[in-house]
Amino acid sequence: MTATKRLGKQTVKLQYPPSIIATAAIVGKKEGEGPLCSYFDQILDDVLWGEKTWEKAESKILRETIIKAVTKAQKTLTDIQYIFAGDLLNQCSGSNFGVRELEIPFFGLYGACSTMAEGLSLAAMTVDGGFADYVIAATSSHFCSAEKQFRFPLEYGGQRPLTAQWTVTGSGAVVLAAEGSGPYVTHITTGKIVDLGIKDANNMGAAMAPSAADTIYTHFEDTGFTPDTYDLIITGDLAQVGKDITEELLQKRGCDISKQFTDCGLKIFDNKKQDTHAGGSGCGCSASVLAGYLYKELTQGHLNKILFLSTGALMSPTTSQQGESIPGIAHAVTIQNTLE
Amino acid sequence: MTATKRLGKQTVKLQYPPSIIATAAIVGKKEGEGPLCSYFDQILDDVLWGEKTWEKAESKILRETIIKAVTKAQKTLTDIQYIFAGDLLNQCSGSNFGVRELEIPFFGLYGACSTMAEGLSLAAMTVDGGFADYVIAATSSHFCSAEKQFRFPLEYGGQRPLTAQWTVTGSGAVVLAAEGSGPYVTHITTGKIVDLGIKDANNMGAAMAPSAADTIYTHFEDTGFTPDTYDLIITGDLAQVGKDITEELLQKRGCDISKQFTDCGLKIFDNKKQDTHAGGSGCGCSASVLAGYLYKELTQGHLNKILFLSTGALMSPTTSQQGESIPGIAHAVTIQNTLE
Repeated sequence: MTATKRLGKQTVKLQYPPSIIATAAIVGKKEGEGPLCSYFDQILDDVLWGEKTWEKAESKILRETIIKAVTKAQKTLTDIQYIFAGDLLNQCSGSNFGVRELEIPFFGLYGACSTMAEGLSLAAMTVDGGFADYVIAATSSHFCSAEKQFRFPLEYGGQRPLTAQWTVTGSGAVVLAAEGSGPYVTHITTGKIVDLGIKDANNMGAAMAPSAADTIYTHFEDTGFTPDTYDLIITGDLAQVGKDITEELLQKRGCDISKQFTDCGLKIFDNKKQDTHAGGSGCGCSASVLAGYLYKELTQGHLNKILFLSTGALMSPTTSQQGESIPGIAHAVTIQNTLE
Repeated sequence: MTATKRLGKQTVKLQYPPSIIATAAIVGKKEGEGPLCSYFDQILDDVLWGEKTWEKAESKILRETIIKAVTKAQKTLTDIQYIFAGDLLNQCSGSNFGVRELEIPFFGLYGACSTMAEGLSLAAMTVDGGFADYVIAATSSHFCSAEKQFRFPLEYGGQRPLTAQWTVTGSGAVVLAAEGSGPYVTHITTGKIVDLGIKDANNMGAAMAPSAADTIYTHFEDTGFTPDTYDLIITGDLAQVGKDITEELLQKRGCDISKQFTDCGLKIFDNKKQDTHAGGSGCGCSASVLAGYLYKELTQGHLNKILFLSTGALMSPTTSQQGESIPGIAHAVTIQNTLE
């Protein structure tokens, strides 16, 4: 069949918008001390959660978050027909070992911190396309495993520049269903890679901002929506530096999102009090903010229609060592309480 | 809408089967000296292909393979609405840097060596679901970048046990379209992770075999097909050790696939003459065999209906060092010349 659901260059409008029937978010202690503490299902005292390594702890956080979301949806694991998941660790071992025992058909993703919106996009398309009734999108990150892999050993105590972000320890999982009373996923704008040459892995916000601006701008072009269509436009983890640049880039193209715009990396921590510098980051940042804060605000009617983006910095330590710049990508998903 | 396309536990039957309208495969010198040499679009003399590092070379191979496939499809890059790609490198940098300049909406995947069938599955669902007219699935691997990352530096000259496999240097890309004259993607069986406790990264065939057997068995259960439905059942890179185990595991469950069964890792090299031990592996193995050999055999009518699987070993060096076993996954796709 021809692609009847396309809108413009990069967007699809779902024909049978799937409903988010449940979410779960489990986060670490520091995230539990932040402004969104009351929105999370569980706050861990111990970053290892009884495991021997940070990597095993991350897998456990993802697994337990998925199980909690399924339970809250009043379903069993065998009801879930696909799971979309990914994370930041080499070979996505957080997810691979996290979902290993669940026995659910699994599509592994890598989109760095864009993974939550990537998984949500694909999960929604899978339900809308008639391939499944129940699908999960989930992702995780862990401050300790990420610092170890991407930057310096924690024990080294390296000083962090003010542009640096703080990787969220946490996971968010979303259960999508063919039938439900909303909130619904209605539009999906899939990002392309944008790389303007930023090379500083301690300034990922700047590296991701051009892709966020590109996806937001394209979303409005494709759909005919304006910033006022939305109660909230919220990016994944641009944090302060990246948010300011995104806003400015869009302003230059005649698009003012300043009234609606915020960022999950700014919501999850009190950056001044918690010493998290530019703000939160990591796959678990936008995932836990979506599954915790945004979902509750939507279902309680405080928000009605949001544009949710996750933003990814697609470098690896190897590519940084080889002098490469940092490619960015951002995927956007419209989530709304009612169907027009 | 309810999931009308589901068959059994893990399979979907596509309602508007997309057509593979073009493929391309570029491989390294060793692969070009193997039995499938005449099927590839390009054989490289130099594993660096003019680049400074193996990683950059891998990205170039992927990018050029995609461009070649698009050209063979008589399309331009702007006609392609999504690209699904992934690879073995940390943070999937082979793909991220490979597709960076292409400006195509991008879904990054991580399925280790299962990535080709994973991408083909999602690409086909995306077209069947009415989300796109033209989609690409592609993946790559590189012997040198993979050895460096997963095993030993090449310069170390470590001895390889006979169960070890040889990572293919190469890439395969497939262009799927809503309209076309076949071969068509008609059924998709998505694998779940199976881990029976194998810990030896030099025996990935044994680690992946249980997942391959599980997906093949489930595919027959879900569809009602039998081994005789197919001219060929071909796995991604189980190679000799894994192929034998898979056959035996299925035999024990009363399913004899011995007449139809082979493996891309056994086809791509002459293991005795080329000293590749158990056979080929890597994301590029099943990708280049599909895009080179299998596609031509289908379009020339030597094959009419095949079950194509890619198999992934989802470990990372970190998880192996932490004593974890190797989770396996296998995804299956039915490709056939005519629609019933």
